[in-house]
Amino acid sequence: MTQPAATSVKVLAFDVFGTVVDWRSSVIAEGEQLGKTRGLSVDWAAFADAWRAIYRPSMDRVQRGELPWTKLDVLHRMSLEEILKQFKIDALIEEDKDHFNRVWHRLKPWPDSVPGLLRLKSRFVVTTLSNGNISLLTNMAKHAGLPWDCILSAENVRDYKPDPEVYLLVPELFDLKPEQVMMVAAHERDLQAAQKLGLRTAFVHRPREHGPKRTIEIPPQERYDVVANDFLDLADQMGA
Amino acid sequence: MTQPAATSVKVLAFDVFGTVVDWRSSVIAEGEQLGKTRGLSVDWAAFADAWRAIYRPSMDRVQRGELPWTKLDVLHRMSLEEILKQFKIDALIEEDKDHFNRVWHRLKPWPDSVPGLLRLKSRFVVTTLSNGNISLLTNMAKHAGLPWDCILSAENVRDYKPDPEVYLLVPELFDLKPEQVMMVAAHERDLQAAQKLGLRTAFVHRPREHGPKRTIEIPPQERYDVVANDFLDLADQMGA
Repeated sequence: MTQPAATSVKVLAFDVFGTVVDWRSSVIAEGEQLGKTRGLSVDWAAFADAWRAIYRPSMDRVQRGELPWTKLDVLHRMSLEEILKQFKIDALIEEDKDHFNRVWHRLKPWPDSVPGLLRLKSRFVVTTLSNGNISLLTNMAKHAGLPWDCILSAENVRDYKPDPEVYLLVPELFDLKPEQVMMVAAHERDLQAAQKLGLRTAFVHRPREHGPKRTIEIPPQERYDVVANDFLDLADQMGA
Repeated sequence: MTQPAATSVKVLAFDVFGTVVDWRSSVIAEGEQLGKTRGLSVDWAAFADAWRAIYRPSMDRVQRGELPWTKLDVLHRMSLEEILKQFKIDALIEEDKDHFNRVWHRLKPWPDSVPGLLRLKSRFVVTTLSNGNISLLTNMAKHAGLPWDCILSAENVRDYKPDPEVYLLVPELFDLKPEQVMMVAAHERDLQAAQKLGLRTAFVHRPREHGPKRTIEIPPQERYDVVANDFLDLADQMGA
């Protein structure tokens, strides 16, 4: 059944890492490839998790003002150096590290992401609203065939989610009321920050974001405007 | 023959009004439609030219600091009020004016724009770099099927071309040297501002931008990296 929100919403703003693309499998796959080439024996799943685990703390350093505005590519690179040390990997040359750091530009979409976005795009403006920098999101879209209408990023306002400025950018740019914009994410913290500012919210369940060992519960239906199993279910519920 | 610039350039940044879309015919066509509906007798070609004629002066007011940062939709609307007075048109209701002002979101592409961009997109990142605001460019792309990889605008830096900040945004966001970015435009002033900052430049000839009565000369080949007849010729010369 089409949700009541569908009639007033004009723009869908998507979280990207985890919501649209499967960062974990992509990082593992490229890690394994790199390991083969350089003769490394590494638990790449543990490596991917460790790298991702310092994603939020690295942005917090910017938000607390310990670092000036720093785009995510640079934070990822700082974190990579840290994780390489932690995993005692010192065989990589600069070129390897530069290339591997850009694995975040080459993340693979979940199977339903592209077909779901194509349907949603026929009825709504679909934009990214990610902490990833603009070039990262642009290259990812090109690589994965993600049919965005627009690339918006924390980089537009030089502050990271969940800073209110990031969410409010969308109604401001599109001359809309907050309730005409819907934030789509697989993460409740992201949705709740958007909800507090009056945006509509859609939770999308991505049970494998953190691999097979961690389960992610589906929140109660009434917590968000839409709770969907994937982007096709979201399209169904949004009448697209 | 493929131009030498083609091998080092990564991003093509496009001027939009006049270069990608035919603003004049589009404004005339919608004006005529509006005229029929509201029973107005107006020379819509003269109207379109008059509206466009105060485009640059309206941005100059922002650049001189007489107005705070004001997005192009709002400047267009202020200009529209002025031109309506000048043409002694007072039969339009608010809704008409709001809709007509957004004709700039619905401009039609030149016939070669979409096929040319599709070819260029296979080899380069293709982005807008326009004085049009982000929502205008996004809606236009959706309406006209323009396959941009990214929407960048003067609005990103809150200053209008030819301010250097607008051009330098592209190499900055994509971690490129200025010479790895090529500005594509049908206007020499735009290209020359980009060239001064070290960007590559491609002139595209749009002989009918100002209608059948004004001719636009093709500049000497050596003035820019590429001088092209249209986007298909640009794709040929750029090896795409």
